[in-house]
Amino acid sequence: MTELSPQVQGPEHDSVAFEDPAYRAAAVDLLGAITYGEISAFERLADDAKLAVELPDKLALAKMATIQFGHVEPLLERIAALGADPIEAMAPFVKPFDVFHAATAPSDWLEGLVKAYVGDGLAADFYVEIAAYLDAGTRQLIVDSLADAGHADFVVDRVRRAIENDHRVGGRLALWGRRLMGEALSQAQRVAAERDSLAALLAGGVDMPGMDLAALSRMFGRLTENHAARMAELGLAS
Amino acid sequence: MTELSPQVQGPEHDSVAFEDPAYRAAAVDLLGAITYGEISAFERLADDAKLAVELPDKLALAKMATIQFGHVEPLLERIAALGADPIEAMAPFVKPFDVFHAATAPSDWLEGLVKAYVGDGLAADFYVEIAAYLDAGTRQLIVDSLADAGHADFVVDRVRRAIENDHRVGGRLALWGRRLMGEALSQAQRVAAERDSLAALLAGGVDMPGMDLAALSRMFGRLTENHAARMAELGLAS
Repeated sequence: MTELSPQVQGPEHDSVAFEDPAYRAAAVDLLGAITYGEISAFERLADDAKLAVELPDKLALAKMATIQFGHVEPLLERIAALGADPIEAMAPFVKPFDVFHAATAPSDWLEGLVKAYVGDGLAADFYVEIAAYLDAGTRQLIVDSLADAGHADFVVDRVRRAIENDHRVGGRLALWGRRLMGEALSQAQRVAAERDSLAALLAGGVDMPGMDLAALSRMFGRLTENHAARMAELGLAS
Repeated sequence: MTELSPQVQGPEHDSVAFEDPAYRAAAVDLLGAITYGEISAFERLADDAKLAVELPDKLALAKMATIQFGHVEPLLERIAALGADPIEAMAPFVKPFDVFHAATAPSDWLEGLVKAYVGDGLAADFYVEIAAYLDAGTRQLIVDSLADAGHADFVVDRVRRAIENDHRVGGRLALWGRRLMGEALSQAQRVAAERDSLAALLAGGVDMPGMDLAALSRMFGRLTENHAARMAELGLAS
């Protein structure tokens, strides 16, 4: 069996990697999580579009939502190509995402924007970290799926403008950002605990380097740093 | 000035037609209404996707929503090509659509499906009737924009299945369909009364054949017949 460290993976290793059922199960799990996450993000952006007071804002958000949804089909195809049922692959992740979104329902337009930016950014960082343990083909598909749908600039502009107009907004949104991070971590932890295949992927195997505690803590450090950078970009303390 | 009856229009007449400011205003008005209608339909389908209990249904509706939104960009471009600001062109129609949707918020998944099918069908019929008074290029764009995003078959299947499972559902949804028709007509009437340009287009002009009362009543008859046919297709009395 070929070594699955990110350095030596290439499309030519795909078929070998996929002969390992544990590996395939982990890839399907990750793709299932990401796909439902994209559908979830689509729904949230469409909701935000409804909250928009200005018609150009509504239009911009609806467009982002459709770009986000455009990532769904290739992900579904990949899951099917791995011999799994896409709907079944997404099923275990429906509840964690729905619980997260229910616990962090934005109370206004700005909270919605911050959630889209901070939440999607955090999720994307996390998936890319895990994708490093997958074959190059799957990894590339994941990276492409997580490409920013153009909302980063839009959100940064709108949030900064709102803070300029009323400085109290900054304090409120900073607290909101912290709450989002907390809820996201709590759901991610629950998923990791329940999905053995993902935990096994991260832990590594006989021929497969995994994450030791030090690597896990470094990953956590990177996620936290990127989160802080995004908050700063919005003009918010983290 | 060239005659603007549907029979003699062709792309070669576009430039002549657009020299008439009243004609251009009417075309911009109609395109503005349709464009905001599409954005509105996108939002409603995305909402319906959220109401879906089954993941494949959610996926199907989210896909329809994005197809619907795909019609928006060409419509915006056409409005801009006519020398108007797309956002301003949509503005007069925001309230009528929002009022319609607020007055007909579906209380469950099935009501949402019926509303999508019956409401979009009725709106499409109405636009195509008016588009007959426009130049061929604009007319074709409108007809393309109103192409069914694939939800007809989906909705018919789901609604019929629900009625098979519980016959009482049919009575409730039949009432719902009648209410939708009533609210739609009431909003359409309000728009027609407020938008002089559209009324003028329908009434015709010096060189332009318009609708007389008999033609208006025939149009109304066609709209009602098509509505009844759609209800019957769903297995509902109209």
